[in-house]
Amino acid sequence: MISVGIIGGTGYTGKYLLEFIQKHENVSEYTIYANNSAGSQLLDIFPELLGVIENQTIKSVDNLSYSHDLYFISLPHGESLKYVPLLLEKAIKVIDLGGDYRLDSEKLYKEWYQFDHTSADLLATKVYGLADINNEKTLNSEFIANPGCYPTSIQLALIPFLRFYANKIISISSVSYSGASGAGKSPKTELLLSELDGNVKAYNVNKHRHQPEIEQELKKYGMNSPFAFTTHLLPIARGIYSTSTIHLNSEISEEEISEKYLTEYANSKFVRMRNVPPELKWVVNTNFCDINISAKNKTVIITSTIDNLIKGASGQAIQNMNKMFGWNETLGLLNTKNN
Amino acid sequence: MISVGIIGGTGYTGKYLLEFIQKHENVSEYTIYANNSAGSQLLDIFPELLGVIENQTIKSVDNLSYSHDLYFISLPHGESLKYVPLLLEKAIKVIDLGGDYRLDSEKLYKEWYQFDHTSADLLATKVYGLADINNEKTLNSEFIANPGCYPTSIQLALIPFLRFYANKIISISSVSYSGASGAGKSPKTELLLSELDGNVKAYNVNKHRHQPEIEQELKKYGMNSPFAFTTHLLPIARGIYSTSTIHLNSEISEEEISEKYLTEYANSKFVRMRNVPPELKWVVNTNFCDINISAKNKTVIITSTIDNLIKGASGQAIQNMNKMFGWNETLGLLNTKNN
Amino acid sequence: MISVGIIGGTGYTGKYLLEFIQKHENVSEYTIYANNSAGSQLLDIFPELLGVIENQTIKSVDNLSYSHDLYFISLPHGESLKYVPLLLEKAIKVIDLGGDYRLDSEKLYKEWYQFDHTSADLLATKVYGLADINNEKTLNSEFIANPGCYPTSIQLALIPFLRFYANKIISISSVSYSGASGAGKSPKTELLLSELDGNVKAYNVNKHRHQPEIEQELKKYGMNSPFAFTTHLLPIARGIYSTSTIHLNSEISEEEISEKYLTEYANSKFVRMRNVPPELKWVVNTNFCDINISAKNKTVIITSTIDNLIKGASGQAIQNMNKMFGWNETLGLLNTKNN
Amino acid sequence: MISVGIIGGTGYTGKYLLEFIQKHENVSEYTIYANNSAGSQLLDIFPELLGVIENQTIKSVDNLSYSHDLYFISLPHGESLKYVPLLLEKAIKVIDLGGDYRLDSEKLYKEWYQFDHTSADLLATKVYGLADINNEKTLNSEFIANPGCYPTSIQLALIPFLRFYANKIISISSVSYSGASGAGKSPKTELLLSELDGNVKAYNVNKHRHQPEIEQELKKYGMNSPFAFTTHLLPIARGIYSTSTIHLNSEISEEEISEKYLTEYANSKFVRMRNVPPELKWVVNTNFCDINISAKNKTVIITSTIDNLIKGASGQAIQNMNKMFGWNETLGLLNTKNN
Repeated sequence: MISVGIIGGTGYTGKYLLEFIQKHENVSEYTIYANNSAGSQLLDIFPELLGVIENQTIKSVDNLSYSHDLYFISLPHGESLKYVPLLLEKAIKVIDLGGDYRLDSEKLYKEWYQFDHTSADLLATKVYGLADINNEKTLNSEFIANPGCYPTSIQLALIPFLRFYANKIISISSVSYSGASGAGKSPKTELLLSELDGNVKAYNVNKHRHQPEIEQELKKYGMNSPFAFTTHLLPIARGIYSTSTIHLNSEISEEEISEKYLTEYANSKFVRMRNVPPELKWVVNTNFCDINISAKNKTVIITSTIDNLIKGASGQAIQNMNKMFGWNETLGLLNTKNN
Repeated sequence: MISVGIIGGTGYTGKYLLEFIQKHENVSEYTIYANNSAGSQLLDIFPELLGVIENQTIKSVDNLSYSHDLYFISLPHGESLKYVPLLLEKAIKVIDLGGDYRLDSEKLYKEWYQFDHTSADLLATKVYGLADINNEKTLNSEFIANPGCYPTSIQLALIPFLRFYANKIISISSVSYSGASGAGKSPKTELLLSELDGNVKAYNVNKHRHQPEIEQELKKYGMNSPFAFTTHLLPIARGIYSTSTIHLNSEISEEEISEKYLTEYANSKFVRMRNVPPELKWVVNTNFCDINISAKNKTVIITSTIDNLIKGASGQAIQNMNKMFGWNETLGLLNTKNN
Repeated sequence: MISVGIIGGTGYTGKYLLEFIQKHENVSEYTIYANNSAGSQLLDIFPELLGVIENQTIKSVDNLSYSHDLYFISLPHGESLKYVPLLLEKAIKVIDLGGDYRLDSEKLYKEWYQFDHTSADLLATKVYGLADINNEKTLNSEFIANPGCYPTSIQLALIPFLRFYANKIISISSVSYSGASGAGKSPKTELLLSELDGNVKAYNVNKHRHQPEIEQELKKYGMNSPFAFTTHLLPIARGIYSTSTIHLNSEISEEEISEKYLTEYANSKFVRMRNVPPELKWVVNTNFCDINISAKNKTVIITSTIDNLIKGASGQAIQNMNKMFGWNETLGLLNTKNN
Repeated sequence: MISVGIIGGTGYTGKYLLEFIQKHENVSEYTIYANNSAGSQLLDIFPELLGVIENQTIKSVDNLSYSHDLYFISLPHGESLKYVPLLLEKAIKVIDLGGDYRLDSEKLYKEWYQFDHTSADLLATKVYGLADINNEKTLNSEFIANPGCYPTSIQLALIPFLRFYANKIISISSVSYSGASGAGKSPKTELLLSELDGNVKAYNVNKHRHQPEIEQELKKYGMNSPFAFTTHLLPIARGIYSTSTIHLNSEISEEEISEKYLTEYANSKFVRMRNVPPELKWVVNTNFCDINISAKNKTVIITSTIDNLIKGASGQAIQNMNKMFGWNETLGLLNTKNN
């Protein structure tokens, strides 16, 4: 049994983190630390959790204790920098749900995140927590940078392909659509239901921060072709749907590719290979990533879908916690009897 | 041909007002005056109107001219008070889309709107512009208080009933559901798509400002029974659906009641009696109000539906303009050849 | 540990029943029986449950065994009549999620359900399973008629009021809005997303089958005033929101009423009293019913909300199963550590 | 003034066709012919048009007259074959909204549409009515195959690029999302709101019938690179959003490309170039296609959006009618005073 601190976590991601933590059989207690909501009652922030969680007063992050075995950090970009070095120094485990340590290169932070990284030495010590791929690395690790939501959906879809066919690829074009919860809980006119109802739009085209993250990781699996990535807003709250189009220089059969994926994910509890394009609703409210392969002539279309708040954030963070402590990876995550 | 000034009108209501005005064959020109958006280009506020309207710079309301034949005012509560007296003094026609002059009693403003009315003498001079009922009053009038959205849907549903059966009524309970555009364009967390998607909630229960407006008007048609009114938010952008339950002290047949309504609205171009409960989508993007009567034993259920931004605001305002100037009431409002 | 049979259960209600059953710690095994889908694989019907439930072949209801300790029946109206008598005769426990045994009077079936009841003697033996009210009756019972979805939301909202104030009531008017899943999974043009997107409509006005069910039960708690009930379709999949307007012949304070409700539900695990109108999303995907009381002058507005597929069907059925077998009522229903 | 026959047209496309036709100043009368709905009243099919259109009895297509100046055909695949040859033989103008004559090659019909084309000689005589590109061809033409919805959105986005840069392209990957109205009005479980609410899915991957149509046309503008096209269903009724990713063999600046598009569409009334990614809602209920270009390094992302029922069907058909008869192309299509 461990004690857990959650820094931030009063946003949409935080809610699910909280739900998973409160029912996790190996977590004995948890404390929430925040900036603006410090002093508030947790149930005033999440009234829907009445009767499910114990109420508690949210503590100020200024009074952060170092008494927990593990800290989850769920803060805006640049804010994790303040806490991660202090925690690691005290040999406390950390899972950072933000982007501050996902990239390997200090320079990329300046270019894509517009800040100077103040603990660049730690970039090399983090484990990139793509749980279903980086099984051994995350096991018993100390510091995990939890992957971004889009990167999770795209990497799980592409890595097995790259392992085998990187040199046959002419180009990869990934197009993702996300529910609006990915844009956070801060009030902005453009995120009002009155604006988004029945609406769709591309955003951050050619400048989304998840692009360097995806490219960095895919190159580790041999990607040497041009890669593009475009993000869109869906008129719904939750879920990510990613469609990756791969143009090949020679045909590969759908059967052969599918076989490779089935082998890759044979032991994965959370990646489900599908023989039809998955539906987003199949994964909403779960930690699953559903993937389908369609190949014809020299074109391969890979569709993949996740819940952005769970597999794309809190669920994968819990999966990473389970592995950090050497527990069964599905603990608290599968809605089944033996979990 | 007239010239029109629009004060306010950069919100959701304003957009439709603008669309109606720009294509109205009897309006030769219009100018937009605003507070915060003064100096902005109209097409930056409403990019969807590119190619439909001529662009113009929004003028500051501080530099309001008195050169137009008619002013529409679409401002937050309490703001119309600043302009209406000045305009009327100059014998300029005014249609106020806000609530500042809808009530007859100064006292009610203190109780329901929490402000002191600074031109209470004008309350008696306004015409309450329920266009499909107050036909003669609105004709050639000088100053119209355009009805609230909920009140429009409920009054059109109840007034014919009250004319004939007021003394048979034990109680009336109206329940309305509105799309989120009724709550405006200012960013608030509670209006985010991520909050409202798949959601419903009652709000302002027993304290909605449209309640005294409805009661005031219905009493003019003989209502002497208890009346209640409850408002809810729908997870969509547009439309109001109102359900009024009337308990009677003796049965009246559905046929008899329906007959009365058909007679009442025989000449109305914008009230459509239905023999099944109307669908909200039938009226969205139109100036129609659709109404159905269902009676069984001593219970009468009247359903009525409008587009909150059109029949509940801008469309009815245009209908009122048409009548103020003695034009055909449907001018610019019906999507037909002869209109 | 018990063995469970599910008859029907391949619709929307069935999915959640299945999910609750598969993870329930006191259920060792279950079998699905159906008509049209007999012979199909369960995972072909519910592909989203891959990795969560064990697959099984759906058996034909024609080969119904009598080997289970409890049968849930989730069939269209009139179909339960075929199985309930046979099961009860063999002293097997039954929870019927349909309406075939909810009413006490044979005559009402002819009037509202248009069928002749073939086992009217059993109407008196069933326990009406409004779990949070009929605590003692459901305990260790043999045959439960699981309440309708709308009736659950309205009875939980009104019964405590009736217990204390029945004689002060002039009239009650309940207006409910439901997500489209309540209308089932059979394809009909009127239920297409293209028809319902952004849409709302009243339906079955003055003739909804849940009306006699609600009246029958409320009269047991003293209701002697006129009651009306109107149902509407929301443009979302799940949830019911009910607004009950009560006109009184003398004022009662909000505090006094709220106090009574808090006492009534002090021990309820699934009714949550709220001091603001509840949001539908607070209860979606849970077995909770959230209730708020607002009183002003002689008007009381009670808002209540449930998930129609859970509290309004499968969740309450599981709650009833727990009580039939004398287990902790929350078993398998609360998403918490100790449940 | 002309007389118009509409064959089919009781589906979603038909509704808007009807609305445009009834208010078009150069159409004096119109008659609807249909199969299943023959004998029905038009207002029973489209109750929302009460007060807007004159009612009429839908005639049977078996009693098709040849008395109109122009016929619109809006029928399922393969059905136009029955009427087009007969009409053209009598020198009557035809606009076919279906796919039966869009492709140039008889063989492709067998492969993609699974039928034998019975009037393949007419494939060469049709004009492919991509109105904003094929200006001269559609002018005064006799027989127009109205483009598919997806092809309209993608061709308008790509043709100007191909004109100038075809040889710099490594690959094109178009990903489109469409509202559910594109899938028609026939009841299917998979199209129920309960299934699609909050949902997204790819469909017809690598086998959508619009793919050969797009490729056929783009090749006319020099496309010699691999092209892929993937379609998805949005959880809303209307609109198409297409994102085309182009990988280049050498960089071209965004400014240069945008300049080319502005020139190409300088005289277009219905293509609006945008300097931000367009929002789908900007075009819903209009005949506009909004396009944005984003270029960075060797990647170009072109987003384009239309209303699938208007620009993607009925609106473009009216635009084509206007050009067939040599009228102002915007007649009846722009919601402005001078139109």
